[in-house]
Amino acid sequence: MRDRRLTVEQVLDPVPREGEVLVEVLACGICGTDLHCARHGPEFNRAVATARGVGLLDLERPVVLGHEFVGRIVAHGPGTTGRIPLGRRVVSAPALTRPAGTLLGFATPETPGGYAERMVLSESLLLEVPDHLPTEQAALTEPLAVAFHAVARAEMGPDDVPLVIGCGPIGLAIIAVLRMRGSGPIVAVEPSAPRRALAEALGADVVLDPARESPYRAWADLAARGAPRNGPGTGAVRGPKPRPTVAFECVGTPGVIQQIVAGSPPRTRIVVAGLCMTTDGFEPAQAVLKELELRFAMMYSPAEFARTFTHLTTGDFDVAPLVTRTVSLDEVPAVFAALSESPEDAKVLIVPTSRAAP
Amino acid sequence: MRDRRLTVEQVLDPVPREGEVLVEVLACGICGTDLHCARHGPEFNRAVATARGVGLLDLERPVVLGHEFVGRIVAHGPGTTGRIPLGRRVVSAPALTRPAGTLLGFATPETPGGYAERMVLSESLLLEVPDHLPTEQAALTEPLAVAFHAVARAEMGPDDVPLVIGCGPIGLAIIAVLRMRGSGPIVAVEPSAPRRALAEALGADVVLDPARESPYRAWADLAARGAPRNGPGTGAVRGPKPRPTVAFECVGTPGVIQQIVAGSPPRTRIVVAGLCMTTDGFEPAQAVLKELELRFAMMYSPAEFARTFTHLTTGDFDVAPLVTRTVSLDEVPAVFAALSESPEDAKVLIVPTSRAAP
Repeated sequence: MRDRRLTVEQVLDPVPREGEVLVEVLACGICGTDLHCARHGPEFNRAVATARGVGLLDLERPVVLGHEFVGRIVAHGPGTTGRIPLGRRVVSAPALTRPAGTLLGFATPETPGGYAERMVLSESLLLEVPDHLPTEQAALTEPLAVAFHAVARAEMGPDDVPLVIGCGPIGLAIIAVLRMRGSGPIVAVEPSAPRRALAEALGADVVLDPARESPYRAWADLAARGAPRNGPGTGAVRGPKPRPTVAFECVGTPGVIQQIVAGSPPRTRIVVAGLCMTTDGFEPAQAVLKELELRFAMMYSPAEFARTFTHLTTGDFDVAPLVTRTVSLDEVPAVFAALSESPEDAKVLIVPTSRAAP
Repeated sequence: MRDRRLTVEQVLDPVPREGEVLVEVLACGICGTDLHCARHGPEFNRAVATARGVGLLDLERPVVLGHEFVGRIVAHGPGTTGRIPLGRRVVSAPALTRPAGTLLGFATPETPGGYAERMVLSESLLLEVPDHLPTEQAALTEPLAVAFHAVARAEMGPDDVPLVIGCGPIGLAIIAVLRMRGSGPIVAVEPSAPRRALAEALGADVVLDPARESPYRAWADLAARGAPRNGPGTGAVRGPKPRPTVAFECVGTPGVIQQIVAGSPPRTRIVVAGLCMTTDGFEPAQAVLKELELRFAMMYSPAEFARTFTHLTTGDFDVAPLVTRTVSLDEVPAVFAALSESPEDAKVLIVPTSRAAP
């Protein structure tokens, strides 16, 4: 991304420093944050700088995006242990352990993100991908870690009934995490029919079209009657005490938070995972009178990243439906333009080495 | 309150039903909610009905306000045990255990609130006031329970640094609860000089005038350096790791929540105890990027009411400064008009029996 436009350019291979490895990128997911950076770079950067004291990226310089990557080790740099051999596949949280810190995917071509054929990674952060895990699924570690963290923020009890609002990649990943944890019934709402089908495939029990019915009534009714999960052996009705309710905001447009405030039963915990970049309005009196909670969620801890990866490797997740398309590097500029208006895709993966020189 | 105007009228004594006692009211605090009911009754009622499914009061009928009361038992009704003898002082959460439920302070003259000479109370809810506890302090049980609940909502750890924004009765009560719990340093901000003095008297360690300096900087600095509490014996510096931060919103006017969102360090838990009756604007992206939490707080549980009372009786609180004035029933209409613009008072108590017939 140069001057906020995506271009495909040949640059020098990055050079591993002390404790770093060089990898060939096998796959890299396109994230909503990447789209944000391209479409709303300055506002987004300003928001990050306001909140955290330092901007996310230097928009004056070219940036190689991509923080949801899987790579194959092609060289061990100086001072590495070689604990993971050459040729093995790895994932890593998108950061280098350099003294100044580097956020991979938001830095310059010297330390590129995963929209590239080569990256350098800190050996100490590498997680080895076992042979049985497809590269496409390993590439989901990062967005699933975001979802894992969002669900952790909810501090759900075993009886909590979740509502997932918006089934883009994050909403779908949250459904997958909720399913993996055994939470449910899982209610999901999404205007796009293809994404509703994905929500079902990933484990949502009740999937609603907001154009046809309010999800809040269905959700509150399920909570009020303590509905059991679908399937045999878990059919015991829990009695009339309403079950706690948790809502996941995965849309990020103005007005959605107030919709949830208005629609939620008392004491609902609302996890805000969507990123609304404009000032938003809501009615605090409603939130007070219902004693709601708004818990805003971003990223994940290193431990959450590692635990998510473990769940992937042990088959606790069934997340194959999340990947709806793979594209080459050359296709990325057009894909970016289309993705903002495409409600059919979930996760699109870039496979950059398909265009590597023979 | 008749047609939203306060009047002093002679009505029949309320009649205790099964399990109820008749009390002579000794003192009753004026609450911000009472002022809300008088000034914004229909909007307030509508907000409550929207949030909870049923309005707080029936504005078509006369209402006897007052839910922060202390009484003296003057008669035991039918089916009572007499476990607390005649002549003893009592407090109670403001409700009757009748099948339909009655919220005392928001009902008609047949079940009056504490702005009256006589009330009926459910014997099972009575807490006996020990001789050593002054009536004026016992009357603070209810607002202190509100503060106790608000602090409980924050789920504070031992190192959390609280900021109390607004030192009206609830802000001051929260300071008293924080002091009682040993939390600190307690930072408070309030534009009124008399209320700032009260904040200090109740235990705030750093009290700031927002016209002179931003409280957010001072608060974040204290958290960043792990400042010890004032006083000897606790002077150990805890090292450079920032302490967690908790903010209590006790103002309830539009824009304050966004001020807190903008001013808070990352991961701050914000307890909203103020009641803003209009739509309010804030920047969700800031809240997401800092991973803030907004926890809205109202009322208290019966257990929290009882625990607050126990703390009062055992001398854990030093809350005498909270009561700034006592008035007679005849003075209430004028006091209501003045209180909305009086930044000097904290808790004003009505002493209704001072005008009882000899």
